[in-house]
Amino acid sequence: MTTTQLLLNILLCLSLIFQCSFAISPLGKIIPRFPSPLIRPENPRGPSLSEDRSSNNGLYETRYFTQVLDHFGFRPESYQTFQQRYLINSTFWGGPRRNAPIFVYTGNEGDIEWFAQNTGFVFETAPRFHALLVFIEHRFYGKSIPFGGNKAVASSNSSTLGYLSSTQALADYATLITDLKKNWTAEDSPVVVFGGSYGGMLAAWFRLKYPHIAIGALSSSSPILNFDNITSPYRFTDIITRDFRSESENCYEVIGRSWQKIEDTAKQQGGLEILRKSFRLCRNSMDAGYLQGWLETALVYSAMTDYPTPANFLTPLPAYPVKQMCKAIDDPSKGDDDFAKLYGAASIFYNYSGSVSCFDLMDNSDPHGLGGWQWQACTEMIMPTGGVRETGIFPAQKYNYSDTASSCASRFGVVPRPAWIPIEFGGHDIRRTLRRFGSNIIFFNGLRDPWSGGGVLKSISKSIVAIVAEKGAHHVDLRYSIGEDPEWLRDVRKTEIKIISGWISQYYRDLAESSS
Amino acid sequence: MTTTQLLLNILLCLSLIFQCSFAISPLGKIIPRFPSPLIRPENPRGPSLSEDRSSNNGLYETRYFTQVLDHFGFRPESYQTFQQRYLINSTFWGGPRRNAPIFVYTGNEGDIEWFAQNTGFVFETAPRFHALLVFIEHRFYGKSIPFGGNKAVASSNSSTLGYLSSTQALADYATLITDLKKNWTAEDSPVVVFGGSYGGMLAAWFRLKYPHIAIGALSSSSPILNFDNITSPYRFTDIITRDFRSESENCYEVIGRSWQKIEDTAKQQGGLEILRKSFRLCRNSMDAGYLQGWLETALVYSAMTDYPTPANFLTPLPAYPVKQMCKAIDDPSKGDDDFAKLYGAASIFYNYSGSVSCFDLMDNSDPHGLGGWQWQACTEMIMPTGGVRETGIFPAQKYNYSDTASSCASRFGVVPRPAWIPIEFGGHDIRRTLRRFGSNIIFFNGLRDPWSGGGVLKSISKSIVAIVAEKGAHHVDLRYSIGEDPEWLRDVRKTEIKIISGWISQYYRDLAESSS
Repeated sequence: MTTTQLLLNILLCLSLIFQCSFAISPLGKIIPRFPSPLIRPENPRGPSLSEDRSSNNGLYETRYFTQVLDHFGFRPESYQTFQQRYLINSTFWGGPRRNAPIFVYTGNEGDIEWFAQNTGFVFETAPRFHALLVFIEHRFYGKSIPFGGNKAVASSNSSTLGYLSSTQALADYATLITDLKKNWTAEDSPVVVFGGSYGGMLAAWFRLKYPHIAIGALSSSSPILNFDNITSPYRFTDIITRDFRSESENCYEVIGRSWQKIEDTAKQQGGLEILRKSFRLCRNSMDAGYLQGWLETALVYSAMTDYPTPANFLTPLPAYPVKQMCKAIDDPSKGDDDFAKLYGAASIFYNYSGSVSCFDLMDNSDPHGLGGWQWQACTEMIMPTGGVRETGIFPAQKYNYSDTASSCASRFGVVPRPAWIPIEFGGHDIRRTLRRFGSNIIFFNGLRDPWSGGGVLKSISKSIVAIVAEKGAHHVDLRYSIGEDPEWLRDVRKTEIKIISGWISQYYRDLAESSS
Repeated sequence: MTTTQLLLNILLCLSLIFQCSFAISPLGKIIPRFPSPLIRPENPRGPSLSEDRSSNNGLYETRYFTQVLDHFGFRPESYQTFQQRYLINSTFWGGPRRNAPIFVYTGNEGDIEWFAQNTGFVFETAPRFHALLVFIEHRFYGKSIPFGGNKAVASSNSSTLGYLSSTQALADYATLITDLKKNWTAEDSPVVVFGGSYGGMLAAWFRLKYPHIAIGALSSSSPILNFDNITSPYRFTDIITRDFRSESENCYEVIGRSWQKIEDTAKQQGGLEILRKSFRLCRNSMDAGYLQGWLETALVYSAMTDYPTPANFLTPLPAYPVKQMCKAIDDPSKGDDDFAKLYGAASIFYNYSGSVSCFDLMDNSDPHGLGGWQWQACTEMIMPTGGVRETGIFPAQKYNYSDTASSCASRFGVVPRPAWIPIEFGGHDIRRTLRRFGSNIIFFNGLRDPWSGGGVLKSISKSIVAIVAEKGAHHVDLRYSIGEDPEWLRDVRKTEIKIISGWISQYYRDLAESSS
């Protein structure tokens, strides 16, 4: 299996944010592959987790809502229900008498507590708006598992996984929010939805499809245009290339030539041992392709999370990890030893805490268990990102949809519907189609983030606006603020708050007018 | 079974337009009930029907599109396909080079040819816009039957009927239109959707949910607010009462007292024979409740189709049938004989052509076979209309949702979801929610039409506008024009054309700007 095939698989299986844990073996059999980034619940400034905190002391309470399995059909099986988890914080809420707002995070492909932790922005913003906070978990993730909460059953085959889709998730949110507003006597409270990455796509789509439920959406780093032929399949790796090249030409060159070097070395007698030692790999996990994939993962995720401050989102990282990785590569003390340089770079991603003694390429632990995203990436979330140009930092590679299709056939026996998302949600000519339709959406993108290539980077109308941060990474705006945040990031958040404040004020004026 | 229960059943089983063909017997068993209005394909000014006309000579060609069974899920069964029928007329089309528009009728609960025939407005309007005409048939109706086109299988139980829903139908339209535009190299052609009654609801919802596919919608007589507690369940019969009362107080009084008279007469010895003779009923079909239902049907549908010119929509009728019915009732030659008066009125609805020798109350022929609307009215299209006030023209009756629920349980074994449509499509506080969202929808309503009670009667924004015709009936605007059309109707159509023309011009300006 070539490096390029491996890369393709990373990007195909994709995971907007993590969970990329399979690839095709040389034999065409899907085997567990990429280690999922470690999920560490602690956030230096964030809440610590507990399920049983009261609403007065804790950051949220955990609740469950009885959700219907299939909103769009009425077969007997459609009526099955499951327990959907949501987190709620009413500490700051102004209450129904004031029609105080409700901020809802539209959960993405993972445990909702993890997203809550990494969305400090809404916790920090809630007090000024007296907002009720609600984080809703996406069906088939975390603890929101249909089929009696039985993960084994829910993920057993396409008959059960078939209920995992973005449209069903959006309808879940619509149903839950409507019920919640009723129960909290908050029918007239404005709802603003928030989300990052796939959750950001859901937030934007929610505002577009359910304008009667949400008055606006902050859609952060949401590549809603990364479908069909709307965005070039080379855009994703173009951005990663640009990120590393922007640090130093040498960094780009060393990485660029390393793929061939790894393959050449592996073919030499004793070459695998050389690689094993160079990259401090555990003995049980040696293979050139796996090593390449392991390095690629580090590069892709570092570019995505190239935050300006130390962060522990996917894994603990220093500020500006791409810069740090290139510093390691440019380290003059390493002389001509490319592997030593690469090892230094990879260590920043995989071992910033310094606790790892050897790296296990076969570690495919997936803290999210179900592999739900792989299913979504094999059905509707077909986001072409696997192309690499000749000048790319990865080995050149044409994007090939049929690789996705055959990988999905062998993994799930399912046929992707690559045209579906643009049919259901739009995307082609979005500036023209939404110019005179819809309102109140903020699309944030950080240009360091490879996903920004599929994002909305230009404002569409007065109230469907793009905020672009040249130095920003994957939904950096949604993170907890810290003292070291650069000014541009403070400004982004200020702008977002100002816009959201405008939506809410406008809503109250309309409400007053309609009741008078 | 009381008259009021019967009425309730008419209105519950409902049928926006026809197809109301069952009710609950005194034993609680659902039996076929109301004769569906006769569907006569001939329209005095409309096309005659043929499936095999070429696009050059005929009014449309019939085509089929391979449609997916379940757009929102990915179970193996979701991937089943069916042949969806659509009618197409390219006679007037300006072609792809001019990006000439496409007018799409979003089919409702019946044979699409019947809707095409009764939507002369688009045929008459197409030439001036050089528009391609497409009429898409709704899944589970006409010839667009899933499960291999096998009606018996498709309607056999809730496992198959479960795929019949408004959201699936809208996704069908989105998929078909997208494919059609591609095949006709018409990607840049603006699409305007049209629909009346349930088809009008679909047209409006299509513009709201698929703005990237349709630039605007003419939604005629679409009671999108007749859900949940948005519209009073008394509104529907209030309007019928008002219609008849507006013709004469005597008309209202005679009809109003007739229900009790029928019951009293039926209880007398020989009373049924009196009724049979009075209403010229065929011998096999005598029963007080059935007679009441038969009369109610005539009143409800005459109010709905109270057109200003002779028409043959549900059944052949003179101009202003409500006026004609009241004239019959007010006929001084009938003296005190209320039954003779009522018989005269009913004859206008049931025997305008004069060809019927006796009336068969048990005639439950349903030209549409599947009873699809009853399924829809038992799942998501729960439109409360069954309430009658003390002052109503029908016997007073409280609206009772549980009657619907139990009727649906016994008929289909299905539990309705009465809250779903407002969750999915909105409706509550529609003026506030759409005031700053969405654009390019015309809601037409004629106030004679009882369904106007659940329609949008006030403009919401500059481009989501209501057109209200005081003397109009159920989607009268969509019918073929004839020389005798009153001025207000000509004006309505002129206004609609002007607005649609504005959408298209605006689209072309935007297109030019975006390509420059």
